Amino acid sequence: MSGAPSLVPQRTRAKARILLDALPYMREHTGTTIVVKVGGSVMEDPGLLAPFAEDLSLLRMVGIRPVVVHGGGPQISDLSRRLGIEPVFVDGLRVTDASTLEVARMVLAGKVTEELVAGLNAGGVPAVGLSGGDGRLLLARRRADGDGPDLGFVGEIEEVNVALLEHLIDVAVPVIASMAVDRSGQAYNVNADLAAAQVAVALRAHKLLLLTDVPGVLRDGELVPELSPLECRDLVASGGADGGMVPKLEAAVAAVEGGVPRAHVVDGRLPHATILELFTPEGAGTMVAAPVDEPVGEEVAAP
Amino acid sequence: MSGAPSLVPQRTRAKARILLDALPYMREHTGTTIVVKVGGSVMEDPGLLAPFAEDLSLLRMVGIRPVVVHGGGPQISDLSRRLGIEPVFVDGLRVTDASTLEVARMVLAGKVTEELVAGLNAGGVPAVGLSGGDGRLLLARRRADGDGPDLGFVGEIEEVNVALLEHLIDVAVPVIASMAVDRSGQAYNVNADLAAAQVAVALRAHKLLLLTDVPGVLRDGELVPELSPLECRDLVASGGADGGMVPKLEAAVAAVEGGVPRAHVVDGRLPHATILELFTPEGAGTMVAAPVDEPVGEEVAAP
Amino acid sequence: MSGAPSLVPQRTRAKARILLDALPYMREHTGTTIVVKVGGSVMEDPGLLAPFAEDLSLLRMVGIRPVVVHGGGPQISDLSRRLGIEPVFVDGLRVTDASTLEVARMVLAGKVTEELVAGLNAGGVPAVGLSGGDGRLLLARRRADGDGPDLGFVGEIEEVNVALLEHLIDVAVPVIASMAVDRSGQAYNVNADLAAAQVAVALRAHKLLLLTDVPGVLRDGELVPELSPLECRDLVASGGADGGMVPKLEAAVAAVEGGVPRAHVVDGRLPHATILELFTPEGAGTMVAAPVDEPVGEEVAAP
Amino acid sequence: MSGAPSLVPQRTRAKARILLDALPYMREHTGTTIVVKVGGSVMEDPGLLAPFAEDLSLLRMVGIRPVVVHGGGPQISDLSRRLGIEPVFVDGLRVTDASTLEVARMVLAGKVTEELVAGLNAGGVPAVGLSGGDGRLLLARRRADGDGPDLGFVGEIEEVNVALLEHLIDVAVPVIASMAVDRSGQAYNVNADLAAAQVAVALRAHKLLLLTDVPGVLRDGELVPELSPLECRDLVASGGADGGMVPKLEAAVAAVEGGVPRAHVVDGRLPHATILELFTPEGAGTMVAAPVDEPVGEEVAAP
Amino acid sequence: MSGAPSLVPQRTRAKARILLDALPYMREHTGTTIVVKVGGSVMEDPGLLAPFAEDLSLLRMVGIRPVVVHGGGPQISDLSRRLGIEPVFVDGLRVTDASTLEVARMVLAGKVTEELVAGLNAGGVPAVGLSGGDGRLLLARRRADGDGPDLGFVGEIEEVNVALLEHLIDVAVPVIASMAVDRSGQAYNVNADLAAAQVAVALRAHKLLLLTDVPGVLRDGELVPELSPLECRDLVASGGADGGMVPKLEAAVAAVEGGVPRAHVVDGRLPHATILELFTPEGAGTMVAAPVDEPVGEEVAAP
Amino acid sequence: MSGAPSLVPQRTRAKARILLDALPYMREHTGTTIVVKVGGSVMEDPGLLAPFAEDLSLLRMVGIRPVVVHGGGPQISDLSRRLGIEPVFVDGLRVTDASTLEVARMVLAGKVTEELVAGLNAGGVPAVGLSGGDGRLLLARRRADGDGPDLGFVGEIEEVNVALLEHLIDVAVPVIASMAVDRSGQAYNVNADLAAAQVAVALRAHKLLLLTDVPGVLRDGELVPELSPLECRDLVASGGADGGMVPKLEAAVAAVEGGVPRAHVVDGRLPHATILELFTPEGAGTMVAAPVDEPVGEEVAAP
Repeated sequence: MSGAPSLVPQRTRAKARILLDALPYMREHTGTTIVVKVGGSVMEDPGLLAPFAEDLSLLRMVGIRPVVVHGGGPQISDLSRRLGIEPVFVDGLRVTDASTLEVARMVLAGKVTEELVAGLNAGGVPAVGLSGGDGRLLLARRRADGDGPDLGFVGEIEEVNVALLEHLIDVAVPVIASMAVDRSGQAYNVNADLAAAQVAVALRAHKLLLLTDVPGVLRDGELVPELSPLECRDLVASGGADGGMVPKLEAAVAAVEGGVPRAHVVDGRLPHATILELFTPEGAGTMVAAPVDEPVGEEVAAP
Repeated sequence: MSGAPSLVPQRTRAKARILLDALPYMREHTGTTIVVKVGGSVMEDPGLLAPFAEDLSLLRMVGIRPVVVHGGGPQISDLSRRLGIEPVFVDGLRVTDASTLEVARMVLAGKVTEELVAGLNAGGVPAVGLSGGDGRLLLARRRADGDGPDLGFVGEIEEVNVALLEHLIDVAVPVIASMAVDRSGQAYNVNADLAAAQVAVALRAHKLLLLTDVPGVLRDGELVPELSPLECRDLVASGGADGGMVPKLEAAVAAVEGGVPRAHVVDGRLPHATILELFTPEGAGTMVAAPVDEPVGEEVAAP
Repeated sequence: MSGAPSLVPQRTRAKARILLDALPYMREHTGTTIVVKVGGSVMEDPGLLAPFAEDLSLLRMVGIRPVVVHGGGPQISDLSRRLGIEPVFVDGLRVTDASTLEVARMVLAGKVTEELVAGLNAGGVPAVGLSGGDGRLLLARRRADGDGPDLGFVGEIEEVNVALLEHLIDVAVPVIASMAVDRSGQAYNVNADLAAAQVAVALRAHKLLLLTDVPGVLRDGELVPELSPLECRDLVASGGADGGMVPKLEAAVAAVEGGVPRAHVVDGRLPHATILELFTPEGAGTMVAAPVDEPVGEEVAAP
Repeated sequence: MSGAPSLVPQRTRAKARILLDALPYMREHTGTTIVVKVGGSVMEDPGLLAPFAEDLSLLRMVGIRPVVVHGGGPQISDLSRRLGIEPVFVDGLRVTDASTLEVARMVLAGKVTEELVAGLNAGGVPAVGLSGGDGRLLLARRRADGDGPDLGFVGEIEEVNVALLEHLIDVAVPVIASMAVDRSGQAYNVNADLAAAQVAVALRAHKLLLLTDVPGVLRDGELVPELSPLECRDLVASGGADGGMVPKLEAAVAAVEGGVPRAHVVDGRLPHATILELFTPEGAGTMVAAPVDEPVGEEVAAP
Repeated sequence: MSGAPSLVPQRTRAKARILLDALPYMREHTGTTIVVKVGGSVMEDPGLLAPFAEDLSLLRMVGIRPVVVHGGGPQISDLSRRLGIEPVFVDGLRVTDASTLEVARMVLAGKVTEELVAGLNAGGVPAVGLSGGDGRLLLARRRADGDGPDLGFVGEIEEVNVALLEHLIDVAVPVIASMAVDRSGQAYNVNADLAAAQVAVALRAHKLLLLTDVPGVLRDGELVPELSPLECRDLVASGGADGGMVPKLEAAVAAVEGGVPRAHVVDGRLPHATILELFTPEGAGTMVAAPVDEPVGEEVAAP
Repeated sequence: MSGAPSLVPQRTRAKARILLDALPYMREHTGTTIVVKVGGSVMEDPGLLAPFAEDLSLLRMVGIRPVVVHGGGPQISDLSRRLGIEPVFVDGLRVTDASTLEVARMVLAGKVTEELVAGLNAGGVPAVGLSGGDGRLLLARRRADGDGPDLGFVGEIEEVNVALLEHLIDVAVPVIASMAVDRSGQAYNVNADLAAAQVAVALRAHKLLLLTDVPGVLRDGELVPELSPLECRDLVASGGADGGMVPKLEAAVAAVEGGVPRAHVVDGRLPHATILELFTPEGAGTMVAAPVDEPVGEEVAAP
């Protein structure tokens, strides 16, 4: 057939090839859930929201069920300062008194979620914002501080309300702010990376994508393409990971050990990073996956 | 059988009577949607949230589908001032520049909604917060200012996304912040009373309850138990209604003319006002209903 | 808020309180099945049927699935005598020859069921009468008489056709006459209290209410509020229960040992006894429930 | 193939032929509803119940939905007399005072229905007895007596509760006693032939079979195989039909004019009359059908 | 009632009896799957197709789900010869080179299936032709030839795509050609008797009917009415079965040992052989069934 | 964000762009039916089947429901000649006597369908072959020959069994041979282009793709990118279209006039022609579409 005369230019033919090269990846992921965590720093670049909406639209088109989780550290600090409250951190964790908690909630649920949802809907992706209090989506308890200083309303997620999420995923992309509640209704600030990992585990997701503002895990300035959970732990323990990367590595390990087959630390500043990671052989960033001989916590059953 | 000897005290017997007196009202409302608008001023009293949760729980128990809409004027003004922005009103409408819009959105979606949702969930009522941007729930256009001054991002609702609401009502009480969006994703501040009326019309609700901080419509200090839409209009035109009551009367008229059989202006400071209005013959506050001979815009069909 | 001025009288406010005090009980029972056995003697008072219909209507309104079982001893004896057949009892059991069986069937299925169904429907409760022969609802074998005299067509229920009942409960309240059949179609008279217990066990009911014409189990003229199955057996064995109470206690024990959490002997002469038992903290009559450490026959699973 | 050697005897081969000759009739009726009215006089022969059960079983096997309606005149008179009440008839209609009504209800719902249901279930046909009061199945008003004597509790059916019947037909054969109720719950005696016709019309039945104790409509001792509604009316008006046949002809006319394509007066004393009428070309008895050019009241739509 | 006067002739009455005699057999088989294998030699008689369609129509009418499997040996040989390819057999198996495979596929899927489907549809039985390649219905591997000569593209079925069959059976009778495929899409000729047995096992069929051109298994010229699997094996091993009967016996044994309760070798030349086998007590041909004490491979569960 | 440092090469980034450029086309077609007609001459190139399977797999991945229709002229002529039957054509139509009909059926249903189905299944696309006789999928009558010579068993499609197709499309790609039947079961050869058009109209398809062995409609050696139905007719009438193109133009016109928005004549020799036509802005071949002001026969409703 290759010799058949044709009026279709070579350039157009190449497009078909690229589309079809993505087919095996689409087949692999169709019908599964993918959790994407977007960081506050990435979301500050307004030029990245439209391509992100395009990516999620394509995911949904091929039958993938995306879920978005976000934090908003820089924006919280910004509003705090505008209100005269100087942010305080202990070991990288925000000390969250009642005033800071109220600021965090307004920023996360009333600003970042709203902007993400508006951008996705404008890009043709039906999206609905959720905070951890909605239907007790993220149920937490106060984080035990041990011997350290009191961190205030910082929580640890104990349970994810999967039923509500599944109900919503059928009609829209959930955009989840990293605020949690306890049974009495008290709110807590929770780490967004870890919240994303726990949502991924609870939904038996196929992948967790952590969009950051670096190219991935670097060692001596070189991108490390793949790490096992064990290697992640060693890296954290040896201090080989810089401060911002530590919670990402911990979240990736939590996801993989919780049964999510693969977690990826990906450069979210790159437009269409999600599509590149999912649908091209090159992938992007650093992948964390259990090696065949390293036992993981739980089998991921077909939904 | 009234003469039968019994060990059950009279007081207990009376309880059964009160429960059963509510039965005809339950029968009347079961299976229908009731929209309740709670005002920012009412929601500032923390002691009112728990009884409100109890009320909604009972509504749901007898098969009623409640939907909550809220504003948050006082809280918006408060945060604005803390950020150094003095609120400006023209004819009772907030002038909403970009900064004020951001403040309004944070307060409504990130504070008032969150507190309502947390309180309802803590009271055993599954609730999910929604902003007008979620799934383009409240689609608006910028309000035409006519010859008056520019009010900024103040919108008029054009369409309510009924499908998303119906999907959610099946599993939780929607708690809707009076923020809307246009098709490009631009947010708008909208009047909460009118938003509630439009949600009620779109959902073909059986009732609209407007919870306020007065006993109802007063005339010469006396509560007016019932008004027709025409009488509401006359009252507004004649200046007989005070400033805060005008949008409530307009919302009630919009609801009734849009096919909602009855709208009620009720004293939200009274604990369990919702139950009293719905399940007792006395009712509460002022009812607006189309008189039999006054045509309304649309028939409300059985769902 | 308690200090807020209000035009709603205190009396009306108290109503809301009583309604909401019932809410925890409604939550406890919603979605479950409650079997109510009404005795022939109670049903002879025409003034009790309308309040009973009201009670069932409220039960259904809050999502409870009531099932009614009835006997009709006095009415059977009455028609027998009118036809010249003198009723004969041995140890409290009716000797049921072919003629008596025909009389019993006519009275139970053709008179008591009909009256109950008509009364419930007139009270707005959709009801459908069922006899044990309908779809082989109550499948029985002839009761072994041991060394005693021949009791004739008195049966013991072996199987309850749950599928037919579940199918009907979706649309109406089943009103079941205590007549059973064997596989050949031969009818048998069965004890109504025990039939109700077996229906309750088969439907995995949440409660069995036995409406009688006494205030409950009495000891020295005092109402005994609660008994364990063991205590019931002792009471029967020791002769401490009077004749009419014995089958009730046996039925309560059979229900509880079959997995029904609680059985109640309640004064059916008291209007709204069902509501009082279910929705008030005082309850009514005598409750039979397995103590925590007394093993019951079967776990009651959620339906 | 007719010449192929075979070890199968001719007699066996003929059976296949007869089975397959019935196939076109099965195809014609499968999926449709057939209402069969059985008379009290027929049901007095215990030898006819087992073959009738066999017939209904075959109907259900080929996808037909049978519904049974019955009266019980002789049995009512019999019990009346045993209770010392002499039956009184005016123009063939039973004068039904309160005592007679109670007798009729006991006989119809408590004896004839019970026996039919037991016989059908014993024959492997799941059956459930229904009285007109069940779910207000047959809603009636008191028959206007005009200038004639007071007939007492004799009713005319105004409405048939089709929803309940359809719900039941899915799981069992409804066996309906010709007792009706009004909205207040008052019972009425109704003519069983006419009740069957109205049930057939309400269910959009394909056929109404009236099983009688004569071979069909006779004219000069000869069976009339077919009549139009007009001819039926003429026959009744001219006095050409004997007393027992008049209500049958009226019921057949009511059914056909109400949209039932065909009504048949069939000899119920003949075992398997139902099968013969439905599945053989010979049919049985007298058919009443609208001639092509005689307009009928309503089109019968496929269900 | 037998003495009742009737105008219905005895001959007609006998028809009802024969119909009802079939009822127990209908009850036994309704809701089950019956696999019928029709041989190429039988299908060459055009007079047999219409009665076969009638049979399947009756089966479907009483709720049986028939599936047809066919071969076409004589027709394959015929077309081969017309194309100049002389058929070669080794031990009764067709040597299938690429040309013969193409001929076999055209004959089976393009001629025999087409004729069967056309005949069934013309007889009112909705039918759809399927080849083993359709949805990988019959997945095979190349038959290991052992030391013998190369048989070419002759396959052994490894898996039957039950999901596709079940989906189709709901709307039509599947007519399956005995062609299979492997995972690469390579076609294979498979034995039709064995294919039918494997389809029957995979569908948990109630019966396998093998329609042949002899009266059944003969011993000394006498029809053997029943054989156990063990007896079948002995018969094959002892050479007591003639060449054509060997694969039928092997298929019957495979079906019964795979959990199909009964397999029958029936004379397909006899019109309505299927009906006679299924619905008359005489049956037809030879039945193979596991004796009570001979364990079979698998329990047949109710569908 | 374009200035962000990234380790992802430009080449990889371009892939994301091409994937996302296809998104608007996917959105346009998702949920719709696309009918693809593949010609016998195209299907003779074995190298084209695997890319065609890839194309259909991608279509299904993005929610499109493809249906394949095929002819097989060259292959029919080939087998005819091998069997000693010289093909005869009148005005481009094959004279189809009984022998030729049998050959055509074997080739279409037993060879071409089988090969297409095997190739699609091997490429991961579940496919099921259908002939017009399956469930009377293509119901035809004999083509009226007018004054011309007798063409034999050449038919015109009168009706397409949409229900069967819809049932199958849910689980597999239907591959339809252009053979039809009449109600008596007689087979007819039908034109494959026209059959595809009629299937497209019956299924309310979004597009009809006619894969040919030329680049499209040519005028003076130049590809004509778009034609209205009127221009197609003129082209045929003026003799401006060569012989092979006439039935394609007629089919395109029939489809568009029957309500299919667009029909395309595409070069099937080009691998992935289907993807290029559907998912790139360049498209491929010649499009036939109703101009806005040219009325079409029927509105295409959303399914």
